[in-house]
Amino acid sequence: MLKMVHKITHVTVRDVRFPTSLEQHGSDAMHTDPDYSTAYVVVHTDSGLQGFGFTFTLGKGTEIVVCAVRALAGLVVGKSLQEIVSDFRGFYRLLSSDGQMRWLGPEKGVIHLATAAVLNAVWDLWARAEEHTSPRVFITCADCFFCLTEDQMLKEGYPAYTTSCAWIGYSDEQLKQLCTDALKSGWTKFKVKVGADLEDDTRRCRLIRQMIGPDKTLMIDANQRWDVSEAIGWVSSLAEFKPLWIEEPTCPDDILGHAAISKALAPLGIGVATGEQCQNRVMFKQFLQASALQFVQIDSCRLGSVNENLAVLLMAHKFKVPVCPHAGGVGLCELVQHLILFDYICVSGSLSNRMCEYVDHLHEHFTSPVVIHDAHYMPPKDPGYSCEMLESSVKKHQYPEGDVWKQHKNN
Amino acid sequence: MLKMVHKITHVTVRDVRFPTSLEQHGSDAMHTDPDYSTAYVVVHTDSGLQGFGFTFTLGKGTEIVVCAVRALAGLVVGKSLQEIVSDFRGFYRLLSSDGQMRWLGPEKGVIHLATAAVLNAVWDLWARAEEHTSPRVFITCADCFFCLTEDQMLKEGYPAYTTSCAWIGYSDEQLKQLCTDALKSGWTKFKVKVGADLEDDTRRCRLIRQMIGPDKTLMIDANQRWDVSEAIGWVSSLAEFKPLWIEEPTCPDDILGHAAISKALAPLGIGVATGEQCQNRVMFKQFLQASALQFVQIDSCRLGSVNENLAVLLMAHKFKVPVCPHAGGVGLCELVQHLILFDYICVSGSLSNRMCEYVDHLHEHFTSPVVIHDAHYMPPKDPGYSCEMLESSVKKHQYPEGDVWKQHKNN
Repeated sequence: MLKMVHKITHVTVRDVRFPTSLEQHGSDAMHTDPDYSTAYVVVHTDSGLQGFGFTFTLGKGTEIVVCAVRALAGLVVGKSLQEIVSDFRGFYRLLSSDGQMRWLGPEKGVIHLATAAVLNAVWDLWARAEEHTSPRVFITCADCFFCLTEDQMLKEGYPAYTTSCAWIGYSDEQLKQLCTDALKSGWTKFKVKVGADLEDDTRRCRLIRQMIGPDKTLMIDANQRWDVSEAIGWVSSLAEFKPLWIEEPTCPDDILGHAAISKALAPLGIGVATGEQCQNRVMFKQFLQASALQFVQIDSCRLGSVNENLAVLLMAHKFKVPVCPHAGGVGLCELVQHLILFDYICVSGSLSNRMCEYVDHLHEHFTSPVVIHDAHYMPPKDPGYSCEMLESSVKKHQYPEGDVWKQHKNN
Repeated sequence: MLKMVHKITHVTVRDVRFPTSLEQHGSDAMHTDPDYSTAYVVVHTDSGLQGFGFTFTLGKGTEIVVCAVRALAGLVVGKSLQEIVSDFRGFYRLLSSDGQMRWLGPEKGVIHLATAAVLNAVWDLWARAEEHTSPRVFITCADCFFCLTEDQMLKEGYPAYTTSCAWIGYSDEQLKQLCTDALKSGWTKFKVKVGADLEDDTRRCRLIRQMIGPDKTLMIDANQRWDVSEAIGWVSSLAEFKPLWIEEPTCPDDILGHAAISKALAPLGIGVATGEQCQNRVMFKQFLQASALQFVQIDSCRLGSVNENLAVLLMAHKFKVPVCPHAGGVGLCELVQHLILFDYICVSGSLSNRMCEYVDHLHEHFTSPVVIHDAHYMPPKDPGYSCEMLESSVKKHQYPEGDVWKQHKNN
């Protein structure tokens, strides 16, 4: 029960971009030069308490999402946290089903990314208002005290895999070095970007498989580069390296295409993983109904915040498909750790075939960055949804007026 | 062959809104108060020739699409029409697959609506550059001279149906009057909005069926109001009024849901129609693959302009499913008449089960408004894609600074 009403007085939003493309961090077969960015939202209340939230973007066009957040803010200002959380479903629908704005989606693309940014901030506000400082904070919000098996998570954390070793723009030397370092730090699961050139992919997969040995886990990720038959052929060629999954083999909208790929690759022991660009729960529902994926990759900023992610976690459980969230970018690891803990503690109760993506970039800009220990996410200890960025980082990276971008322009 | 290069020097975009909600025009079960609007684009060239284009929106949030058009303009300025049309597929991909901006879609929602607005203007520019003044203009652009059966279309036009009689916010009296007028004007096909209240729907459908008699065509449209089982039950209750189709029975993303509804309603002789919120060709492909619709409703402003609409027309033909475009709003009738003529003349060659939506609003704001004769679309005679609005109308309705909105605010 909230002790105060916390009426929302205004919502601010800023365009914050990191020039990651300069070093090819995050490069893949479809996104060759991403500048990891956020539309960064602060929800202000009359009590002085603030909620922080954001959605993740790749640079250009972040201003469009900022514009969409401003449009949604009109539906939020004047509401109190108390009234929101007493009917959160109603509040979600208010934002996603506005009679005029729903034409712009509905529940997809820019307007849904903006919805996620606003709702993430509201969840953060709620968690802070509850004044919890334990990993329970998020779980409390979801009214799921009952099945908290804190101990194991507090001690060992949630298993993670790394994508940091093998972005497509990295050289073989860089890849080898990063892989050596990762092995030393205890990583056992590795993802490689593929899809631009089969010869390159073969060489890079061979290299990594040799370095990690036959028992560690390898995943490959094509970032939607192929059509259906191309995907089946290409992945079959890479089957000798025993990837656990092929991620985003084709267009994220092509449910039936993914089903065909899943069916063709099953005999090779390779599953299909997708979800970081799956626009909403209705699409996930169909992916599950059509047996079109074997690993569900929820995204904390593409789906409509915690609300819609919970719906997908529950559906995945019903269909007995493991959830392995998408993370990385900027801040996605910070957010998604809450979701995955919730999944383990309240929904699935299993770690079988489950792990969460980890990328080692940009955590230093957050007030409560993720803690990784021995290739595991350690439960967050600060109150809130871990969305808050350092004000100094925000100011420096605001686009286009921050120092980083002014400098960049001058070079 | 173009006589000049027509280099694009700049792109302007304006937020133009019509206060249609004041009279409940366009009201349905999900969109109770739309203000029909456009993000209105002009492409300027060094030759002085201009191309006009837009995408359609429902009021609030149009500024987000305007912002997205500005972001895309950077990819267009500096290109020449000659270079664009010599590789139009490449140009389409340039806009839809930008490495940073595709994250905001890809190819859906705000960014795809903006892509449509820009590309519609480029198609208009191309048609004007070709200097045609006959119905051939559009067909010329698509390199499809060969099968032009002008005569029939020039004489009789393309069959249309009307949605103007039965918006959900209209009273029974209004509905009766409009229906009487429409019958007098030669209309034979009528669409009724349903989905808010079954008792109301039953009364309204009975009223219209009584007025039009047993032989004329009735369609019903729920604008996504139901879930799957609700849709089947509700439509079964209205089956006695013999609707040809139920339009948008559920979430536009739920392909498998539409397939289930199609299967359940087939024995009643009622088809499923959908498409005005179908985000792209990949979704249409699956709707066709899954037998999830019996009428394809393309939209000239939701799909990525002419290019993507042509792809969907060809797929529909392959699957032997008739195309009955969505129109109405503001300007959709003006655009879609070109697409439907192309479908008849170059693709389907059939009028069986085919007709195009017509709504009698806001045509007076266009320089070449559609001509309806005896409930048929008469082929356009002016060069271009019929996108150009009267400059006086644009100025008056620009949001928020136009006179109409200044006045509206003062009331």
